[in-house]
Parts: sequence; C-alpha cells; structure tokens
Amino acid sequence: MNLTATQAPPDSPEQFVARLRAVGAVAYHDRHPFHLLMHQGKLTRRQLQAWIENRFYYQWRIPRKDAIILSKADDPEFRRAWIGRIADHDGDESREGGMRKWLRLAQAAGLDPDEVRSLKRVLPAARYAVDAYVELVASRPLVEAVASSLTELFAPELMANRVAALEQLYPWLDRTGLDYFRGRLSEAPRDAAFGLDFVVRNCTTRAMQDRAVEALIAKCHILWSLLDAIHFAYVEPGWAPPLWPAAE
Amino acid sequence: MNLTATQAPPDSPEQFVARLRAVGAVAYHDRHPFHLLMHQGKLTRRQLQAWIENRFYYQWRIPRKDAIILSKADDPEFRRAWIGRIADHDGDESREGGMRKWLRLAQAAGLDPDEVRSLKRVLPAARYAVDAYVELVASRPLVEAVASSLTELFAPELMANRVAALEQLYPWLDRTGLDYFRGRLSEAPRDAAFGLDFVVRNCTTRAMQDRAVEALIAKCHILWSLLDAIHFAYVEPGWAPPLWPAAE
Repeated sequence: MNLTATQAPPDSPEQFVARLRAVGAVAYHDRHPFHLLMHQGKLTRRQLQAWIENRFYYQWRIPRKDAIILSKADDPEFRRAWIGRIADHDGDESREGGMRKWLRLAQAAGLDPDEVRSLKRVLPAARYAVDAYVELVASRPLVEAVASSLTELFAPELMANRVAALEQLYPWLDRTGLDYFRGRLSEAPRDAAFGLDFVVRNCTTRAMQDRAVEALIAKCHILWSLLDAIHFAYVEPGWAPPLWPAAE
Repeated sequence: MNLTATQAPPDSPEQFVARLRAVGAVAYHDRHPFHLLMHQGKLTRRQLQAWIENRFYYQWRIPRKDAIILSKADDPEFRRAWIGRIADHDGDESREGGMRKWLRLAQAAGLDPDEVRSLKRVLPAARYAVDAYVELVASRPLVEAVASSLTELFAPELMANRVAALEQLYPWLDRTGLDYFRGRLSEAPRDAAFGLDFVVRNCTTRAMQDRAVEALIAKCHILWSLLDAIHFAYVEPGWAPPLWPAAE
C-alpha cells in the first residue's frame, strides 16, 4: 500500500512543528552566501548599500501582504492580533514604524532615504521576488498564507547576529541605524508564536500540513531569490540589466 | 520652461518607432551573456538543457498572457487578429503548436518532455520573472500590454542566428527539435507588425508613448532576468536554492 500524503494520518503537533523548523534549518536565508559575506564583514560599502536599497522593497510591500491576510480572515480575534503587524511597519502615534527605521538604516549607510523610498534602485529581479510573496499570499487559503509568514520563527537568531556583525565589522555604518533589527528581535518571536499556533491548530489533515510546509518552502525561496538577485548584480558576476535606471 | 514628458508634443510615428527600436538595440536579451555563450557554442549540455527547462515556463504562460490581452480588447477586429497567437502556442486541428514544438526541442536535447512539462525544473526566480510578465499585462491598459509584446520586433534575427548556432555548435542536439525557432521566424514578424501598428496608432500623446516605451523596457527586463536566473544557477556562481526539488 502506497501511503500518499493525503491518505496519511496527520503528524502530531510536535512532529508538524519539527517539519516546519526543519525547512528553516536548510532553506532560511541566514545560510545564503550573501548573508554569510555580510556577517563576515566582507561586503563592500556599495554592496551593503545595495542590500539596503533592494530589501527596502520587501519592507515596502509587507504591509500590503498583511492587509491581504487580514482580508482573508473571518475571525475578529485573528484580525485583532494580526492588524498590529501593519502598525509595526507603518508606525502610529506611539511609535516609529519599521519602514521608517529601515530608511534610518539607509541614512546611516550613507544613502539618501528619499532615493531609497523612490524604489528606483530596486533591481527588477528583486521586485519580482517580493511581488511573488504578495501573490503567494493573495492566491492561497488563509492558513497557508499564515504558514508562509513562519520564516519569523528563524529570524531572531539572524537579527541578533546581524546587529553584532554590523556594529563590529562595518564601523562606517552609524549605529543609530540599527534600531530596525533591534525592534524585530522582540516583534518576530511574538508574531511567530501566534502564527505557529494558528497553523498547527488549523492544519487538521496531513494534506493541509503538507501544503503549509510547501508554503513555507515557497517563502524561503522568495527570500533566497531576493538575495540571489542582489548577489548577481553586485557580487558575482556583478551584472545589472541594461536600461535599468540605477545602473552605473 | 521645463518641458516634462506629458507637456511635450508626441513624437512623430517615425520617431516613436525609432525610440521603441532603440530599446531593443540596448536591452533585448540577444545581448545577454548567457545567449552570447549559447551562440558561441560554449554552453555545456546541462546548461543548454536548463535553459530549455526554464524557458518552457515562459512558453507555458504565454497563452494566458495573450488571453488577458484578448480580455482587454473591445474591438472584434483586434481580437480576431490577436486570438491566433493562442493557437500558435496551443496548436489546433491544422498544426502543431509552439508549446509542443518546445517539448520536442526538450526531447532533442535529451530531456524527458513529461518532466519538463511538470514544471519541477523551473527555478523559483525564473517563475517570478515570467509571472511578472503576466502581471504586467494584467495590470496595464491594452496599449501598454501590446507594447510589452514588441520584443517580437527584435526576435527574428535572434531566431535565425540561433538555428544556425544550435545546428553547428551543438551536434548532440537532434536537429528535428529546432522547428520551434523556424516557426517563430515567420510568426514573430507578422505579430510584431500588427502590434507595432496598433501601438503607434493608439499612443496619441507623448505621455502614452512614454508609457509604451516604459512597458517595452519592463518586458526586456523580464526576459533579461529570466536569463539571469538561469545563468546564476547553472553558470556563475552556479547556485540553486535549497529545497528546490530539481537541485542535484
């Protein structure tokens, strides 16, 4: 008898969580060569700037991604919990949002925040990868969209390493620009715990669990490909597309 | 007085066509290093196969792109002209379509057509680039969507060179697999002439002309980034994402 995924019984919550974590252990972008270079202090100033410029597009699109998730949720309690993510990025009366913190990082790295915000320096391939995340969330059921956010499970360690690496290895970077990563140190674990609980409770069949794991892999590929695009244009082989406005 | 694009008078048809052609002269993917390697006979068997596998996803999505364009057209005469593109790819009673010809190319290159058709060997970044083309066409007015198809103006020369290069430089490739490119030699000029005439007639202001040029540049970036993705994974630096099913 051939137990296909849909006929198999669901994994226990512990087994399912272990499967989700195993995705991160192999495919989360902390292992990407560009991040390894970054954390070894081997990026040039221009390469680190390019990362800040391109990754800004991710920050820019994340609140729309979260609004799409909100728009799929019927449960007021879920929406009450999720809506805070949009304010985390956009800010409100009481706090500066993550997007503005990212622009302070850009300034700390010697970039013009207005130019970063114009998106002119976003590589086409970086844009396609980030847009694919919005499309992934838009095209899948709520529980898979939430599963794709579970890269947050793996973020805190990366953020902690990053703050230390950027402070020590890039002395030309103004340290006041690192607040974004400090903020994520507390936000990501809270968000990930909520998302993980939701995904575990709502994936009641093996097929749903499999699709959640697949959504998390798809999200890891998006983050990975975003770094591929930056690496390709600024490290190796170092080619940007012709007629791209920011090409030098 | 600062003449911005929208205040400027429209270019003459000749000037406008020259601007569109100038985009291709700089940004069409015939100039991409991966294509240069291909036409110099410098790709390995596996690299040429990878190109066939990934480019298949473009063939796969093109009929949906053309259906979106059809869905935006109010003029029966336009639809009557455009609908043939879908049959060109899908085939009908009287002829084999481009998609099946592409799968014969895959077979001629030693690939399993069913595996190519499964899309398992499409790199995530190749998928994002092609999906961005469908999204570009879906999100813009008809005339800009048609303008994005004008890369066909530049295709015939590339196709002619390709047939010669593949025949001479890759003797292990079965020549019967090259019918796709031979077909495009006649289809692309006919389609491009229709599209160019439509774009020139319907871009009645300078702003519309500018947006048409921009749409053509955006399409060139998509084709270019598709090759970037293949080059990155199979030539330099040669990295595929983790947990990607086709990674070896």
